[in-house]
Amino acid sequence: MIAVDWGTSNFRAYRLGAEGTILERRSSTQGILSVENGGFAEALRAEIADWLAHGEERILLCGMIGSRQGWVEAPYLRCPAGVAELADSAVNVPFAGAEVLLVPGISAHDTDGVHEVMRGEETQAAGLLESGASPMLICFPGTHSKWIHLRDRRIVNFTTSMTGEVYGALRNHTILGRTMTTENTVDNAAFLQGVARSADSGGLLHHLFGVRTLTLMDQLKADSSASYLSGLLIGHEVRAAMPYPSAVHLVGAASLCSLYRQAIETCGAPATVEAEDAAARGLAVIARRLRWI
Amino acid sequence: MIAVDWGTSNFRAYRLGAEGTILERRSSTQGILSVENGGFAEALRAEIADWLAHGEERILLCGMIGSRQGWVEAPYLRCPAGVAELADSAVNVPFAGAEVLLVPGISAHDTDGVHEVMRGEETQAAGLLESGASPMLICFPGTHSKWIHLRDRRIVNFTTSMTGEVYGALRNHTILGRTMTTENTVDNAAFLQGVARSADSGGLLHHLFGVRTLTLMDQLKADSSASYLSGLLIGHEVRAAMPYPSAVHLVGAASLCSLYRQAIETCGAPATVEAEDAAARGLAVIARRLRWI
Repeated sequence: MIAVDWGTSNFRAYRLGAEGTILERRSSTQGILSVENGGFAEALRAEIADWLAHGEERILLCGMIGSRQGWVEAPYLRCPAGVAELADSAVNVPFAGAEVLLVPGISAHDTDGVHEVMRGEETQAAGLLESGASPMLICFPGTHSKWIHLRDRRIVNFTTSMTGEVYGALRNHTILGRTMTTENTVDNAAFLQGVARSADSGGLLHHLFGVRTLTLMDQLKADSSASYLSGLLIGHEVRAAMPYPSAVHLVGAASLCSLYRQAIETCGAPATVEAEDAAARGLAVIARRLRWI
Repeated sequence: MIAVDWGTSNFRAYRLGAEGTILERRSSTQGILSVENGGFAEALRAEIADWLAHGEERILLCGMIGSRQGWVEAPYLRCPAGVAELADSAVNVPFAGAEVLLVPGISAHDTDGVHEVMRGEETQAAGLLESGASPMLICFPGTHSKWIHLRDRRIVNFTTSMTGEVYGALRNHTILGRTMTTENTVDNAAFLQGVARSADSGGLLHHLFGVRTLTLMDQLKADSSASYLSGLLIGHEVRAAMPYPSAVHLVGAASLCSLYRQAIETCGAPATVEAEDAAARGLAVIARRLRWI
């Protein structure tokens, strides 16, 4: 079978063997935003024509491809939801020459009625659901970080933090960026200094101004202030998402996961960076429930 | 005498009577950044030539005019500092035809060694030092809000929050702004909804994403989402600056002070919006100590 994680900016496909083993993988920047005039069937065929020719007849999709801007809209499942609910609610997508199913996204409600939605992370989390640990906290760091709570092999709740996007806006569009160099090298000590500062009671909006004063007073090098800002924001995110220390599983780009791991450990909790291809593992788990493998 | 609050973007001058009464006031956008080639003496003379011709012989300045980018750099005074310290450390500025003194700014250290500095607000606060209430908490809302703690008629500490600038960066340079209208009308109910949300334990970076989901789910009108964002940020600022309810004196633009008053009252503390011309009153108090009036 073929497993596809089709997001806003990226397309990632895997050819899976009988046990869910990854036989082949490929990816491109053909995210749903770069597909024109709804030509998703053609785009998919172009990406994996050789696999289809090879005889693959089943394709399982997840990610933003199931959103209103995607191929077929798959309504959000409400939490709590596990592998069974995700598999049972998979939406059929017409496609000549193969059976195509699309895993829906999930929605949750915050304590005071604010909605949360995700598409893709629920499938990546599904691969960890079977690991047995319960409860489990999974973090997907990024532009809009997701923190997913698992209990009894189901996703029971999740929250989103705008950390990555706020970092970019502050760095590129406030006075804080003026003294920052354009390099992206991380100064680990400055990053941890920012994480430590986030434990202070003064609040994020106050701590942010400190990036400026520390630099002006030569207590922080201009080259290091971007790393300090990153530590401040990630520290605030981690402390709010993890009100008491709790083991965290990190899924995402290695460099970012490494920073989050350090921030989580600073807050007194253990953190594990999960292997890549979480989407392939999650899609395999759901495919098994569908009796595709 | 003449009292001048000369900031980065604005010039505000007052002709004061014997008791510190404001006899005349004027202002312009001739802030220190618009004065070229260090021509501060000429710029000052151009603004108040008629008052000087009228026989005024003493000028007391405060604000960014005392910074490295200003006329003469007045070193920061360390907290705690009151009217006596501000008057005693005033710096003499050579100027033909009048005696000119410049009130220094103040610096403070946060609990973990992060510096804070201000120029101008210390003088505006000085006008309130004599009111007798002790301790007192004064808030100057704005791009970089200041929160000043007074005790025994001295400024003992202060903190800065980047609230106004962060609001602008988020509104103009993140996904949150995409659904916001360009109008600046405040929806008071949405503002208070944002303030209420800030009491939740999820943290600011998580709450920010709620601006998007509430709008997408039609729980918040696009026209109101900027007010909600403002309430969220000001709510977080107020709660962090005021860990326990405490009476706050607000100094600043009437519309912004009104929003802060509501946020502070929502947090269970009384707030008073102070009369305008706080700088004139503060400069008069310092001038009295100098025996100028």
